[in-house]
Amino acid sequence: MSEPDASTSSAPSGFTRVKRLPERGHYDRETIDPILDAGFVCHLGHVVEGQPVVTPTMYWRHGDQVYFHGSAASRMLKTLGSAAIRCCLTVTHADGLVLARSGFHHSMNYRSVMLFGSATMVEDPEEKRAALEAFVERLFPGRWPGLRPVTAQELKATTVMRLAIDEASAKVRTGPPKDDEEDYGLPIWAGVIPLTVTAGAPEPDPRLHDPSLSPPALRLDPS
Amino acid sequence: MSEPDASTSSAPSGFTRVKRLPERGHYDRETIDPILDAGFVCHLGHVVEGQPVVTPTMYWRHGDQVYFHGSAASRMLKTLGSAAIRCCLTVTHADGLVLARSGFHHSMNYRSVMLFGSATMVEDPEEKRAALEAFVERLFPGRWPGLRPVTAQELKATTVMRLAIDEASAKVRTGPPKDDEEDYGLPIWAGVIPLTVTAGAPEPDPRLHDPSLSPPALRLDPS
Repeated sequence: MSEPDASTSSAPSGFTRVKRLPERGHYDRETIDPILDAGFVCHLGHVVEGQPVVTPTMYWRHGDQVYFHGSAASRMLKTLGSAAIRCCLTVTHADGLVLARSGFHHSMNYRSVMLFGSATMVEDPEEKRAALEAFVERLFPGRWPGLRPVTAQELKATTVMRLAIDEASAKVRTGPPKDDEEDYGLPIWAGVIPLTVTAGAPEPDPRLHDPSLSPPALRLDPS
Repeated sequence: MSEPDASTSSAPSGFTRVKRLPERGHYDRETIDPILDAGFVCHLGHVVEGQPVVTPTMYWRHGDQVYFHGSAASRMLKTLGSAAIRCCLTVTHADGLVLARSGFHHSMNYRSVMLFGSATMVEDPEEKRAALEAFVERLFPGRWPGLRPVTAQELKATTVMRLAIDEASAKVRTGPPKDDEEDYGLPIWAGVIPLTVTAGAPEPDPRLHDPSLSPPALRLDPS
């Protein structure tokens, strides 16, 4: 919850500057990257004829880029790729419900990142293949080499986009509720109920070739 | 995963029509409402000078409306409220990672809803108070009456917005991976790793008045 520090990779200005509760704003990659790395579903906003459209999609970070992908037939990816239009990619982790003594001070602990910019299409088949490998390996380290190899046809049918981590900001809330001073003496439970995303027992495909095969280890949060 | 049925509340057209993988699209309230009710964080998209901005915010459904709120000083809420501009409110549940025998067919099981429209500000203080009560009660049934009552000042400092569930679509994927027929015989684990949001042990506020107070029951998914 510190102020933006000297290691800021991009000076906050315009859209990236956190206006409300500026003490929650961060602009340094040391804060931004672990938030990106802790997730795999983002919400991607783009504008079609004045209408904002917010689409959930999977993503992964590699170095200074965030990647996402989809079918080459995807309307959204075609739009994003065709004309370098502006988008906003937002990643949010709901870390806890914050219960105060008054309804007004109820809140949420969270970490979120907003990236602004224009996404570009990955054209080179080898960069595309490497990006898809990084995506599988990010969630399931060691799985890629054991998979049926990707075909040229599949690479062609897949659109991979990259968005540079350039215009970026993070917003974070942590800690207990902040109640009005005179409310602390009230006999009302207050505190935080932490939330996490948890993986359940793997459910083998009913058509699994060999029931003795083991599921791969899942790495939800590599950071 | 059925086709849109006769109980559709709003005919899908334009933005609400699911274009990619139309078999995943739904337009009936029987599908949409439980998806909305199962969550409490949405991603709200609006456009500022051509730039899409996607902001995570808490929401709740009451009848035919989705509500969200924030500070009366919020730049986003001021913009949304001042000129009936178009927004997109998206709710997503990541239900499982779908592991296939090829990288290409890896996928995710999810439920998502996109609402389009113009949000309007709740002006009437009593409707505002009732909406905030519904928000607290949605997560913590029975908590509201025991809280320090909301003040007129707090109501004034809080902006509550409503968005009608009118132009809406849901998109759902369930079930095992869909591999290429010739890949099913490969000795590669395939299946689904289910994901859920889980609440951890409540963390009492260090300034809790009486350590014997019990935290309220949390209802993450009332549907």
